[in-house]
Order: sequence, then C-alpha cells, then structure tokens
Amino acid sequence: MKYKFSSSIILGSILAALLGGCSAGDPETANTSGDSLAEKSFVAPGEKDEFYLFYSGGHSGQVFVAGIPSMRHIVTIPVFSPYPGTGYGFDDESRAMLGEYTWGDVHHPGLSQTDSLYDGRWLFVNDNANNRVARIDLRDFKTKQILGPIPNSSGNHGSSFVTENTEYILVATRFSVPLPKGRVAPMESYADEFNGMVSGIKVDQETGEMSLGWQILTPPFNWDLGSTGKGPSSGWAFWTSYNTEMAHETLEVNASQRDRDYAAFVNWKSAEQAVADGKAEMIDGVPVLDPSAVPGVMYFVPVGKSPHGVDTDPSGRWIVASGKLQPTTTVYDFEKVLAAIEAEDFQDTFRGIPVLNYDAIAEGEVPVGLGPLHTQYDGEGNAYTSLYIESAVAKWKLPPWTEEQRADMESIVTDKMPVHFNIGHLVVGGSDTREPYGKWLVAMNKLSKGRHANVGPSQPESSQLIDISGEKMEMVFEAYTEPEPHFAQILKVDAIEPIEVYPKAENHHPHAVWSLDEGTTWREGDTVHAKIVAVRSRFGPEKIEAKVGDKLVIHVTNIEQTSDMIHGLGISEHNINVVIDPGETKTITLDLKKPGVFPFYCTNFCSALHQEMQGYLVVEPAGETAMSQ
Amino acid sequence: MKYKFSSSIILGSILAALLGGCSAGDPETANTSGDSLAEKSFVAPGEKDEFYLFYSGGHSGQVFVAGIPSMRHIVTIPVFSPYPGTGYGFDDESRAMLGEYTWGDVHHPGLSQTDSLYDGRWLFVNDNANNRVARIDLRDFKTKQILGPIPNSSGNHGSSFVTENTEYILVATRFSVPLPKGRVAPMESYADEFNGMVSGIKVDQETGEMSLGWQILTPPFNWDLGSTGKGPSSGWAFWTSYNTEMAHETLEVNASQRDRDYAAFVNWKSAEQAVADGKAEMIDGVPVLDPSAVPGVMYFVPVGKSPHGVDTDPSGRWIVASGKLQPTTTVYDFEKVLAAIEAEDFQDTFRGIPVLNYDAIAEGEVPVGLGPLHTQYDGEGNAYTSLYIESAVAKWKLPPWTEEQRADMESIVTDKMPVHFNIGHLVVGGSDTREPYGKWLVAMNKLSKGRHANVGPSQPESSQLIDISGEKMEMVFEAYTEPEPHFAQILKVDAIEPIEVYPKAENHHPHAVWSLDEGTTWREGDTVHAKIVAVRSRFGPEKIEAKVGDKLVIHVTNIEQTSDMIHGLGISEHNINVVIDPGETKTITLDLKKPGVFPFYCTNFCSALHQEMQGYLVVEPAGETAMSQ
Repeated sequence: MKYKFSSSIILGSILAALLGGCSAGDPETANTSGDSLAEKSFVAPGEKDEFYLFYSGGHSGQVFVAGIPSMRHIVTIPVFSPYPGTGYGFDDESRAMLGEYTWGDVHHPGLSQTDSLYDGRWLFVNDNANNRVARIDLRDFKTKQILGPIPNSSGNHGSSFVTENTEYILVATRFSVPLPKGRVAPMESYADEFNGMVSGIKVDQETGEMSLGWQILTPPFNWDLGSTGKGPSSGWAFWTSYNTEMAHETLEVNASQRDRDYAAFVNWKSAEQAVADGKAEMIDGVPVLDPSAVPGVMYFVPVGKSPHGVDTDPSGRWIVASGKLQPTTTVYDFEKVLAAIEAEDFQDTFRGIPVLNYDAIAEGEVPVGLGPLHTQYDGEGNAYTSLYIESAVAKWKLPPWTEEQRADMESIVTDKMPVHFNIGHLVVGGSDTREPYGKWLVAMNKLSKGRHANVGPSQPESSQLIDISGEKMEMVFEAYTEPEPHFAQILKVDAIEPIEVYPKAENHHPHAVWSLDEGTTWREGDTVHAKIVAVRSRFGPEKIEAKVGDKLVIHVTNIEQTSDMIHGLGISEHNINVVIDPGETKTITLDLKKPGVFPFYCTNFCSALHQEMQGYLVVEPAGETAMSQ
Repeated sequence: MKYKFSSSIILGSILAALLGGCSAGDPETANTSGDSLAEKSFVAPGEKDEFYLFYSGGHSGQVFVAGIPSMRHIVTIPVFSPYPGTGYGFDDESRAMLGEYTWGDVHHPGLSQTDSLYDGRWLFVNDNANNRVARIDLRDFKTKQILGPIPNSSGNHGSSFVTENTEYILVATRFSVPLPKGRVAPMESYADEFNGMVSGIKVDQETGEMSLGWQILTPPFNWDLGSTGKGPSSGWAFWTSYNTEMAHETLEVNASQRDRDYAAFVNWKSAEQAVADGKAEMIDGVPVLDPSAVPGVMYFVPVGKSPHGVDTDPSGRWIVASGKLQPTTTVYDFEKVLAAIEAEDFQDTFRGIPVLNYDAIAEGEVPVGLGPLHTQYDGEGNAYTSLYIESAVAKWKLPPWTEEQRADMESIVTDKMPVHFNIGHLVVGGSDTREPYGKWLVAMNKLSKGRHANVGPSQPESSQLIDISGEKMEMVFEAYTEPEPHFAQILKVDAIEPIEVYPKAENHHPHAVWSLDEGTTWREGDTVHAKIVAVRSRFGPEKIEAKVGDKLVIHVTNIEQTSDMIHGLGISEHNINVVIDPGETKTITLDLKKPGVFPFYCTNFCSALHQEMQGYLVVEPAGETAMSQ
C-alpha cells in the first residue's frame, strides 16, 4: 500500500483523552494583545455586521442568526419547535406544519446554490430526531415547509446537503431500522433485517417546495456527514459511516472494531436516471434503488477509523475525509476516483457494492493531528480541519503537492490554533461553494467548561471566531451558543435583500381585512368567527362575544405597511399568542372551555400607545345567549 | 399649586411623534472614536464578563442571561415556555409545572433581596398573559416554581417587585375583570363591575416557595410598573396606573382624557396586619382587603398623564414617576408623603381612597424631555430617565437641590444620550437596592428599525450599553434582543457561586440508578418502566421493549459528577427530548401508539463517543408478546 493508515498513536491514549472530555494540559491563551483584538470583532453602534452566521440550534429545534464579526445573536428562526416570541406554532398554519412534534434536533444548515454558489434563496435544515427537512425562505427568514418524517429512514443526520443547482437536498440515515417503518424485527437480526437509506429530496426550482424523489438502500451503517460534488465531481455526493461493524449494542466499543470504515460515493444523477428507467422498487410509497442491483449508483471507499464526515474542496477535485480515531486526514483525488471506476479498480465488494481501491484514489494522508473531524476551505488552497482530541484547528495545504512536500507531509500542516474546548464542527464562509469567502473561521466547540460566567449545570457551548486572513490564524473572539451548534453557514449580508413588510397586494388570505370598518365577528352554528384588524394602536373589533363550547376562529391582519411595525395578539389564560408582521394575516382556532371575561392585548411593542392596544373576549356560560348579539 | 403639570408642549405634536414610531430626525452617532470604544465592551477569549444581565424574554416566555460588558448571550433560562434545548417541558416534573400553558409574557425580572441588597438567591419573573409568577433558583439557574394563574387577577403586568427582605413579591393587575374570575358582566358596567388587584405573594424564607398572601381590591385602573420602598419608605410599595378614566373601549383615545392619572402608594405591612386582624373578605380562596374600608392601606397620588412606572431611589426617600404624555418627571419626597398622611392632607378621595395633596408631597418636576418612562439610579446621586419620544436617556440630579437649581430646573438635567430607537426600559445594576453598582446602563429600545443585518419582517429589538462612569454618558455597544426586553436585572458575577453538578447525595429520586448494573426495565400491567443510566458513552439498558397501547415511564439518571458532562435522551418520532445534567434524574411518561423500532440517542454532546450513545425502543404491535421477556 502506498499510503497506510497511521497507527503510530496508541489507541488507548486517544481513548483516555477522549473520555477525559477535553484535551490534556491547560489551554493556551491564543492572544497576547487584547488591544488590537478588540477592534477586529467590534461593530460600532449603528454599523452592521458583514456576514450572517446561520447556525444550528441543535435540540432547541431552531436556527439562530448571528452576525460576523461581532458574533452577536440577531434573531432566532423557529423551525421545529414552537416559539411564542414570533407566535410560531400557535396559529393554524404553523401548527399544521409542526404536526405532532414540538421539537427537532437541528444539525446541518445548507444554503441553496446555483452553479455551486450561494444564491440566497433558501436555507435547508434537518431534524435528526424526527427525520425531517425544513426550508427557510431567505426572502423573509421564515420556515415555509417541513417535509417528513421521511419514509424508510431513521435518524436524518447526514443532511442537509444541497446539490450544485439545488436540484436535491441529499440526506442519509444515522440509524437503521426494519423497513418499511413500523415493522419489528429482532435486534439480533440487525445486520440482515435493518437498513439505512440515502434519500434525494427534490426541490421545485420555482417555489422551493420539497418532495421525496428517490431513495437508495444501504447496509445498516451509521451514516454521518456528507458533501456534494462540483466540477469534476459534479453529480456526485459523499457520506462517511462510523459503524461498518453493524453493531447494535454497546456501540462505544463495538462500533470501533474495524481499522477502517467506509464512505459512500453516490452518483445521484445516475440514481435519478435509474429511477426514471424504472429500476426502483416501491417501499412505503417511495421508489427505492438497491445499489447492488443498479451498478454505478454507489461505491464504497475505505476511510480512517470512525470518521464523522467528508468535505469536497471548492474545485470539486479533492474529497477530504478523516477518521476520528486516526491522526491523519485522507485527500482523495476525484479524477482518480473516476479513473478507478472506469478501470473497475476495486479492492473488494461489500454486499454487491464495489469498494474502490484506496491506494488508487488517495492522493495522500495529511498528519493534521489528533481526532480530526471536519474540514473547511478558504479558496486560497488552504484547508482547515477540526481536531477534536487536540482541541485545535489545523491549517494545511491542499494538493497539488511538490515532491518535497510529499517527502515531508508534516510540512503541509502550516499552522495550528488551540480552541476551547473539543471542537466539533467549524465553518468558513462559502467553503461548500466554488468561491469561498475565506476571511473568518468559526470554531464550534462542544464544551465550554466554565469559560463563561457561571450559569449552573446547564452550560452553553462556546464558538470562537478566528481570523484566517493572514498566514497564521488569529483567535479573535468567543461567543456562547446553545445548545450545540452542529454546523453553520455563512452568507454575505449584502448578498440578499429580505423584505421587511409583506406587500398588501400579496396577501390572499380569504379573511384579511384592511380597515377598521371591515373588522367584524359572526356566528356559524357553534363557531364564532372574527376578522380583526391590528393597527397602531388598536384592534378592531375590540370585543369578541361567544359562549362556552364554541369554537373561536380569529383571523387577524396587521394592516401596517411600515418596517418593524409588528403587532401581537395574546389572549389571557387561553395559551394563545401570535405575532403578525406588517401586511400579514394569521388564523387562530381555539375551543372555548371556560366562562369569563378574558382580555386580549398586543404582545409585541408597536407604539407609544401599545399598552392601550387591548380588547376583551367575553365567554358566556354554555347555553346562555351572547349578551349583545 | 406650587408645581404645575407642564403643558407647554402641544400634545398633538407629541402624538405625531408617537405614531411615527421613532423620533424625528436622524439618530446621532454617539461615538466618534470607534477605536477606544472597542476596548470598553471587549472581553477577550478566556476572560469573563463582570456582570450578569438577566433580561426579560417578553413573549418568548423565557429569561435570557447575557454578560456585561460584552453583551454576549450566555444562556436561555426556560420559564413559561417549553425549551427542548434543555428538555424543559418534556419531563413529567416540568410539564406539570407548566400545566396547560406553553407560553408566557415575561415582563419584569426581580432579584431577591436581603436588607435592600441583592442576596443572590432567586430571580422572580412575571407572566403578564396568564397571570403567573415564577421563581428561578440562582443556585442552578433553573425555574423551580410557577405560581398561578393568580385568582382575582387579570394581566399580571405590575410585577415582580421584591420587598426589602423578599418577604413578598408584589404584583398588580394591568387588566380588570368581573370578580371572581369566570363571572361575566356587561362591558358597559366596566367602571362598577370590573376590578383590578394588588397581590402580596408570600415567599418562604427557607425554600423560596411562593404562596398567595393577600390581595387589595382596586378600581378598574390599568396598573403599570411599580417599585418597593426602603429606608423612610420601608414597608411601602408604589404603582402607577394609566387608565384612571376607566375606559374599556378605544383606550388609545379614551384612556388619555384626564390631565393626570393616579399612582397607588400601598402600605404592604399595614395590609399584612389588616389581614391578620381579620379585616379581609375571602374571594376565590384569597383574603381580599377593600382599601376604602381599611384606612392606611392604600393612598392615591396624582402623577403626570399616562405614566408607566415609578422608581424608588436607593435612599428610599425619593419616589420618581413620569407621565409619558408630559415632558417632566415628578420627584416625590416620601418624608413629605408620611407627613401628609399624618396630617390627612388630602386633595380628594376616590371611591373612599384618599388622594394625597400633590403640592404637599412633590419635591419638584424635572424637565427631562419628551416621553419620560422609567428611571434608574447610580448611587452617586444621579438619576437616568428613559425618554420614549425623544429616543434618549436623560441624566439628572436627585434632590436635595440648591435654591439656584430650583430656580433653573433645566440645570438639573446634566446630560442626554440618544438611543436607537424608542427606548422603553433601562437598567442600571442594583438600581433597586440601596447600593447600586453604577458603571453601566443598558437602554432597552423598543424598535431596531434596521440597525442590524436585515433579517426580514420579524425584527429584534436593540439594547445599547452605555458607560455611566463619567460625567457624560458614553454609548459603547449595541446588542440585539428578542423579543422585547421589558426590563432586566444586573448582578455581579462574583456575587454568586452556582453549582455546576448536582451532588449525588442530594438526588432523592426514587428511581435514580447509579451503575450500569442497576439499570433495568420491568412491566406492571400495561405500564413498562425503565430505570436508565446515562454515562459517557452509553445508556444502560440500551433496549426497551414494549407494545402498542402500553404506557412507558422512563427514569434516566446522568451519573456523571463532572462539570459540563451533560447527556440528553431523545426518542425518534416520539416527541421526547430531555436533557439530564450531571447528577440529575428525570422522568418521562409517554403513551406508545405505533409499532416499530425507534432509536433513542444522546442529544447533548458528551464525549468523542457521543455519537455512539444510542439504544432502541422496540414497540411490538398491540396484543403480541414482547419479544424477549
């Protein structure tokens, strides 16, 4: 073998470091001159940040938007969890979108792309827990669709990876279950009866609407992060897996037995064609391909032990994957991959799926350090790999390498920056496009261990802003992020122009009303309807009368057409709060169960007379006639 | 009259400014040298903030903790809304605490006090929407109790105001309803049949447990913010009201008719005594005092038109209240108040409640500027008043004033700082204690109007950090806060020492288990129980077997005793996520409704083998026997 998996570091010592939770030794303080640093992240009052940081809210179920370089939190975009702050999950439409779930586990946001560049249309995020994908529209920063639970899939962790022109959101399963879902098989039959899945979620180019395109069956490996191709790897996508042992018990031991795991190299254009050619079998309503029966759709590639992802470089030629339990990162040359496939240079097959010859496709192994996880790129030929065990970021040079460099691979690693503590993900703006922004790197560290003012046992994580514009990295600022930022995307602020007001002309809600005269209430059987105007500084009407047992349906329209003139509608002791942005209409449905007089009021500050913006819901006891109608 | 309510400014022009939403003219940029400013708020990586900023999360229902001077968000403390990020609202205990509500409208956090100083024990916050008060324990930054909905009360806005030794949390109603709650009366009878209420929430000195002490009936005014006394005003509390017109329709017009509104000056020690003396009537289980029948409990005090609060100075002698629709702030001398009460110097009575003679108790009117709302103190004799209409903070001198100053009251206002935009609340650390920290002021502005990177129609508010250590205020930094920070409390970080781990010895959960051997599952009829250990990097047991129709009760213990070693337990497609801090046990109950194999996994990063920390919930179809038991 030309490149061997390094084993010079004793696994036991790695494990000891792993279980300790953070790297040995005291963290270095990365800066010596606080003075100059302060200017770097400072954004003066009245000035704006240069970049958006869209970061995963983990098991909060949300996406957070911060600014770079200030690292200030700007807003929360509610996605998989209700958020009364914007009324999300309280009006009929968002309640229906959330369905039976009130949380999600957001992992990896992915910006839409056109020609392998961010196009500023949408942000996609996945829910690992309940197997869903959501689409946020960057025109208004709102969640517009939640697709799922995805059939035949459990643990939607390996997503959301966007193809070159947003043809698909590609997702892969972390868990395997007997298929179709709902079937029970003995755990002992795990290797045979359980399956993982790669899915192509089709995206409508006009509307962004997602639908399930096709799926590819996989062995019950645990798929982790992936990446899509571009340039020479156009039409391909890649994932690593960390349980090719197919263990189902005590994974902490049993899933670390093999010296290497597999990545899957998937030709999604071929998969699309194979499905069009009728080569799929329908399972739970989805066309599913068996890759052993459809050659050319999926290949396996040996990678280091327990990898957590694979990252395509901006050119699309270099595919980088690291095994967490080895101290090197492998660079695969996709041109060699194509040649090996052409030449059928396979070192093995696994369940009928060809395993590419590692020696034939690996360009080299870079000795980045301990616990390498993920890699980002600055577009200047540099790569940045997170080192979990070392708690550091390694900067290194992508190929092509000189003969001198090949002879001394240590020389390829040009810098290392300690981070605090135990970095998982990291992000460089545009790293997954063909033109990265470079400039800033955000290290998303898994543990903060008291780097912040003590807030008790439930600690946030820490994210650190690193300046990568120079030859050496410079630690600039530290922010706290909760919970668990699994990944982020960076977008230039001036790349998009979100609307600040919903134009009246676009409001097609059947019960929108635009003047106080039109606001009214009426009864249809046991249902009381109300069309309400919200405008500085009143509701119209400001009294709703009904009786116990009625259903109440309120349509509230914020008739303002001015930026930041937002109204809320909260109803006392009825667990209702919606927020209505300028030009928006929202519908609320509630069952009236108790008699009394219940004030409602504007919950979102709107004007000096905001406090006066209130009304009354009068609920007569059941059977009695409403007082004044 | 010695001091007249100024009316030199035409109300129409004020209203025009009000309705415009922000002050006329371009905002001044308050700083000219970005260079020196950057250092002021900068906290270098590895350094900690000096102060906690506990700020209201408004209708998000939560409390946010930020650091000062960096203004970085550190954590969210979930209070009135579920928060899957910490599993709050998903385990049995927190679900029971939330009851039927999944949101609240958090307004005014109040730190517990001993001898009129912060004692670092608890933080109390109110829910304006559902009439509740919550207690957060600062030992672990967790919500421990939610009291309410409070009987006989609607719109718990005028709280949470903590008495000198945390004897009571004092709260007052924003809305009025027919009492007891549940009764319906015609809106036309508003002035006679509807009532407001002041409540004394008793706090157990050992445990912090809150219970309803007593209430005082009020006319149907809309009570707004209040303040408790100290020093000469010990035993007293104060609120302003903004609808002494007792309007119930179109308040934006009808509640601004009178030239002045009333503040209520309440002797809570007398109220407590009167209740002990049997002078209360029970309404809905609470002893309620009628202040017209119990002299000495409540007095009314004329204040400027449409006030939004009253603030006691650190000495307890000066009580400051502003009418939003007048350009001055009134300083009342509490020694004169006591004298006027003693002398029965009343200018009027309202429904049997004495109205104190304004001229006899007002020390003076300070021409602070347009739209004065709230006032904070630095302990150096300076007061800071938020000016909503001017979008500014006015700095002025508290009495005693010289004769020269009295002759030129403009001279009392020593500085003014523009803020962006339309400030509501403001906070100076310790302002409500007898020893303010001074140093920093945070202006909580109601509108941001595009001062941040554009995030669409749902915009955050902006909070600005102002250095008040010098003679002139200096604008230092701007952060974004969502939604609507209604007030905040500042506490020195080194004033408390929260725990980071729950000691095993304190865990008295009956189903806690502390070793993998002890973890087990068992069946009792249609209920399957599981005692599960969570420890790096596995669950024990890692398989739970049950069948459709079973109830599943899981008790999961995080047996770690190391800071920041937090585990989560998420169950795929079952809407369950809990987070278990080190040493904690949580119980989850769920009904099993669908067959299948459902992975569960650790949702909160714990170690390098976190990803391997998983198990399976196997649910057989109804009627079938569990596979292996």
